Amino acid sequence: MSLSALRQNYLSDGMSTMNIGIVGLGLIGGSLGLDLRARGYRVFGVSRREQTCQQAIARGIVDDASVDPTQLATAEVVFICTPLGAILPTVEQLTPHLSPSTVLTDVGSVKAAVVEAIAPLWPNFVGGHPMAGKTDNGIEAAVPDLFALKPYVLTPVATTPAAAVETVEKIAKSLGATVYHCRPDDHDRAVSWISHLPVMVSSGLIAACMSETDPGIKALAQHLASSGFRDTSRVGGGNPELGVMMARYNRQELLRSLTQYRHNLEALIDSIEQSDWVSLEQQLKSTQLARPQFTHQ
Amino acid sequence: MSLSALRQNYLSDGMSTMNIGIVGLGLIGGSLGLDLRARGYRVFGVSRREQTCQQAIARGIVDDASVDPTQLATAEVVFICTPLGAILPTVEQLTPHLSPSTVLTDVGSVKAAVVEAIAPLWPNFVGGHPMAGKTDNGIEAAVPDLFALKPYVLTPVATTPAAAVETVEKIAKSLGATVYHCRPDDHDRAVSWISHLPVMVSSGLIAACMSETDPGIKALAQHLASSGFRDTSRVGGGNPELGVMMARYNRQELLRSLTQYRHNLEALIDSIEQSDWVSLEQQLKSTQLARPQFTHQ
Repeated sequence: MSLSALRQNYLSDGMSTMNIGIVGLGLIGGSLGLDLRARGYRVFGVSRREQTCQQAIARGIVDDASVDPTQLATAEVVFICTPLGAILPTVEQLTPHLSPSTVLTDVGSVKAAVVEAIAPLWPNFVGGHPMAGKTDNGIEAAVPDLFALKPYVLTPVATTPAAAVETVEKIAKSLGATVYHCRPDDHDRAVSWISHLPVMVSSGLIAACMSETDPGIKALAQHLASSGFRDTSRVGGGNPELGVMMARYNRQELLRSLTQYRHNLEALIDSIEQSDWVSLEQQLKSTQLARPQFTHQ
Repeated sequence: MSLSALRQNYLSDGMSTMNIGIVGLGLIGGSLGLDLRARGYRVFGVSRREQTCQQAIARGIVDDASVDPTQLATAEVVFICTPLGAILPTVEQLTPHLSPSTVLTDVGSVKAAVVEAIAPLWPNFVGGHPMAGKTDNGIEAAVPDLFALKPYVLTPVATTPAAAVETVEKIAKSLGATVYHCRPDDHDRAVSWISHLPVMVSSGLIAACMSETDPGIKALAQHLASSGFRDTSRVGGGNPELGVMMARYNRQELLRSLTQYRHNLEALIDSIEQSDWVSLEQQLKSTQLARPQFTHQ
């Protein structure tokens, strides 16, 4: 193969010269911009705030940015990286200005509600969820390689064109992520266990500790709290808006997980109430054994 | 002050030439030995297993070690670092061989039951609890500086001689720990919130995730589980024997904490069931605000 044929091949692959739009320049959108530019994509950012656009340009997160979404007319792929509740209004505002061949994808942590609302509006839409996060939010928290070695779920439906799925999958793989495909509602049930339920479990723990009415005991508990409390309470001390969005858009699955969790908690309480230490040890042994299946250790 | 007076002062202080015994050479006993020897104490270890004694000598955790507790006759301070359930039998076996001036202390994570049992047997007993731990157990996991910058609780009672408390406090401070004094039952109530309750909350989470009956969803959840699940489930995947001991010896306080926790969990479930997102956001905001009071961030 000659050099010019190689170059032709490279260009026809269409990846490195692709125009990518990112709407919403927070932790996820900002980190995505950093990685995509590093891989040679041209990245155009859209934020509601001019100041965020300027920050994104200054930090090299985007090639250019604007508060005006009509500027995405030439984008071949657009990532919607807004909070969950803003995805649908953003898409409704955006689509009149896009070419029908533009592939749309999102990064929301709930998929069924998003895909049901958007797939009928835009056939070239591919639901997505990169399983990457940090305690901090906003463009200030954006970092390179946030998605490397992390799961990235795509949730195409029967009507999603295979070419659109391939396009998003190639980009996700270029970030170093491990790509999974599943149905939107399977995604939502799986994440209700390992992502949304932990937020409520952990928030309840903090609420319980706060409820101590003896100020001396409460102060002592605050002084003595160590790595065990720190880890168990981390996600319960996270972004409240994100927690509400998870619950709102994945309400049914989260309630199902919470009902099951309540049942498992009652079983632990029963063993302790009845001083049934053999049973309690069996319960704690089974969770000790099961955890590595989820943490890959 | 002359050099010889300084030296006299140093010796009369009695710290660096003190003979310290450690019974139970696991994570805590082993880490304690490493630190105490590094600070110039003479350390004698006692383990039920000859192999552990040899390991402790080989790793420099102790100056010498034996399976025979009568060898602790010359120890001025003895740390009981066995599991909670073995503290009382160990003390009963040990005390006939000790000088009455020997200060006894333990490192158990529950204090009222321990102090009530041992204070009448040995007036020079000071209940103690260094709030340091790791996921791994055993002498292999012992590391230097495990206690540095960590809380170390002492729980003297009315009958405890002030000199005995001072002796243990000086040693704890020499480890770099921050020493707190409180009543044994105040300790137990405080740690039931921030140490024992998190174990049950976290174990219940793992149990709930395991209960998913659709093997495809379960496998997906296992693949997608990320840092949120990892942190929230860490203490629930820990040593089951330790979890049982906490529950067994701190049963009443743990049940009280679990009852309160159940109440807070119900409040979260109610908000989600009623789609009361304003209330859910208030709950999540209050736990986001409260967490730093416990994590010192």
